[in-house]
Amino acid sequence: GQQLNQYPVPTYPPPESDDEELWLWTQIKAEARRDAESEPALASYLYSTVLSHPSLARSLAFHLANKLCSSTLLSTLLYDLFLHSLSSSPTLRSAVVADLLAAHQRDPACISFSHCLLNYKGFLAVQAHRVTHLLWSQDRRPLALALQSRISDVFAVDIHPAARIGKGILLDHATGVVIGETAVVGNNVSILHHVTLGGTGKVGGDRHPKIGDGVLIGAGATILGNIQIGEGAKIGAGSVVLIDVPPRTTAVGNPARLIGGKEKPAMHE
Amino acid sequence: GQQLNQYPVPTYPPPESDDEELWLWTQIKAEARRDAESEPALASYLYSTVLSHPSLARSLAFHLANKLCSSTLLSTLLYDLFLHSLSSSPTLRSAVVADLLAAHQRDPACISFSHCLLNYKGFLAVQAHRVTHLLWSQDRRPLALALQSRISDVFAVDIHPAARIGKGILLDHATGVVIGETAVVGNNVSILHHVTLGGTGKVGGDRHPKIGDGVLIGAGATILGNIQIGEGAKIGAGSVVLIDVPPRTTAVGNPARLIGGKEKPAMHE
Amino acid sequence: GQQLNQYPVPTYPPPESDDEELWLWTQIKAEARRDAESEPALASYLYSTVLSHPSLARSLAFHLANKLCSSTLLSTLLYDLFLHSLSSSPTLRSAVVADLLAAHQRDPACISFSHCLLNYKGFLAVQAHRVTHLLWSQDRRPLALALQSRISDVFAVDIHPAARIGKGILLDHATGVVIGETAVVGNNVSILHHVTLGGTGKVGGDRHPKIGDGVLIGAGATILGNIQIGEGAKIGAGSVVLIDVPPRTTAVGNPARLIGGKEKPAMHE
Repeated sequence: GQQLNQYPVPTYPPPESDDEELWLWTQIKAEARRDAESEPALASYLYSTVLSHPSLARSLAFHLANKLCSSTLLSTLLYDLFLHSLSSSPTLRSAVVADLLAAHQRDPACISFSHCLLNYKGFLAVQAHRVTHLLWSQDRRPLALALQSRISDVFAVDIHPAARIGKGILLDHATGVVIGETAVVGNNVSILHHVTLGGTGKVGGDRHPKIGDGVLIGAGATILGNIQIGEGAKIGAGSVVLIDVPPRTTAVGNPARLIGGKEKPAMHE
Repeated sequence: GQQLNQYPVPTYPPPESDDEELWLWTQIKAEARRDAESEPALASYLYSTVLSHPSLARSLAFHLANKLCSSTLLSTLLYDLFLHSLSSSPTLRSAVVADLLAAHQRDPACISFSHCLLNYKGFLAVQAHRVTHLLWSQDRRPLALALQSRISDVFAVDIHPAARIGKGILLDHATGVVIGETAVVGNNVSILHHVTLGGTGKVGGDRHPKIGDGVLIGAGATILGNIQIGEGAKIGAGSVVLIDVPPRTTAVGNPARLIGGKEKPAMHE
Repeated sequence: GQQLNQYPVPTYPPPESDDEELWLWTQIKAEARRDAESEPALASYLYSTVLSHPSLARSLAFHLANKLCSSTLLSTLLYDLFLHSLSSSPTLRSAVVADLLAAHQRDPACISFSHCLLNYKGFLAVQAHRVTHLLWSQDRRPLALALQSRISDVFAVDIHPAARIGKGILLDHATGVVIGETAVVGNNVSILHHVTLGGTGKVGGDRHPKIGDGVLIGAGATILGNIQIGEGAKIGAGSVVLIDVPPRTTAVGNPARLIGGKEKPAMHE
């Protein structure tokens, strides 16, 4: 958001401190207030999604419930579910904060935190996934799977509830992302649209990729099998990756070959 | 659903027998009853989508109508349409059964029949497509096309009503699948997400691929033109296929080349 | 729509004349009237979306508002916004006309103008994008971004409001199309589904492709960076294009190489 950022960011608290979530929520409310003033057509929308809520967790729970509800899966049920999950898990809340910061820092088109919170379906899909993952770990599988299905209908992002996803995640554009059951995604990973972390179809069990910290995966890349993508690696757009990729290495092509250094990352947005 | 299957499957009636649909419906109701008991938050959802219905056809018609309705295309109209189509066509009903069995057998992440019936947008898109195909064959083209459009909006699956699709079909993840007007898909075919069965843009008329029985098409594969993919062939993820593929042969790459035997199928989920 | 066109097209007024929009609207109403008579199940739908409206602009504004509204972004707000934008901009209205003609001429599966108007999510997404672009140029960025987000949720088409798009555009199937902030698309361009006009992630500022007039971009092609695709060029399905493509040249493969003449366009639908 460098060149287009309309909202200069004041002094920032130390990462992971108790004040970080509160600081971000204060920013988001200030952004929403300015937008509501400059655009009366959005005032009611911004009031109901942001300004009427006492916390980031409540705003997010309300927004997700409204996006994901249906005539048979009611928004009240989803709101209670999201709010309870966020309220009871500091880990979930700190991941929300880390993901908002990641979008703001890494996506040049992200002009404000509230833009990400309200408008990025990749951000919303990942937060909802984290709730399905919590449900899965509590052995509430039917509810986790019903929610996964709604996320796929509404955001075209299909992440199995059992998949483990770190924090500081940017799912840019997000349409068509598929992440399988035994996939693991580290921290500070950026994933463009149409990316698949899938299986090869030859085995059951642990069959999906393991993505290291700080990896960047270009649009349309397909990564298949229980392989390791080392930390800081870059996967070129449109690659089909069937082999391990060492740390800080770039893989491009179909099938992907490794190229040293940082050549042709072919990435972002 | 081997390793995660929570619902052991009792003795199974002979395939294609009259009892098969009833057996499956009994399974689905038992699954839904257990899930409703273990997860009260889902009880009302499961009652309205499964347990309140006297047959698989009615449950499916209700669920599809709710998913595909809009403020201008009412759920009552769609429910009547789906129910009438399913009730009057044993072929449609047997394809529903075959597709549910296919997902359960071929997708390791499919833990129950009710999971597929309620949550797999690929399954739901294919059942709705079959109704558009029936309408098309009855020369009710405007309704068929309006429904195709809703299926593409809601499930991100775009299948032309004139395309002919066999049974035992698994559309896994399903986002972004596009199947053109003169395409033909055989029985027991598995198609991953982002797969295109398209034209080359150079001709009108019969211009789309013909897919044999038992073919497996990996994520993101693009198959173009009036070409034949022989039975049991495997198309690698991310391939761009512009030539015939003989039976039991694997095609990989962009443009795809043929490789013998079963090397690197690069497939599933 | 040659081989399937049910509606023979009467004498056509000179392109860009004042009568063109009126002529097209007369066609669309005649098609809708015939469809409503032949298919009573659609009569109420066709009345509310087409036949009850006094102009193409009102019909389109109503249809878009219904498709894009949510519980927090009301259809009345969107209807006013779309109608006001279309009413006050002859450029927007002439682009609507050019896009309807383009779909009818270039897509063999497009059997009528009303089919495109009502059912093509690519057409609808582009018209809605043009309104976000107008808002962006008026410095109403929060509203433009909220609308971009709804378009991406509903149609799985993500076009940044700042992107500049010509007229006579066909977005065929459309699922998964992503067009970045500084991209420019000329007139009479055809873009298949899953196409990305993206950045390379290495720079901010002017970082997206410039697409010349009459270009054809195949399904799943990924075009990255501030590069030029010359007029009349063809980009093969599944290509990853990182270099300039001269006019009337074809690019295929990953990474794409140039091939002379018109070999293997590997394109449409």
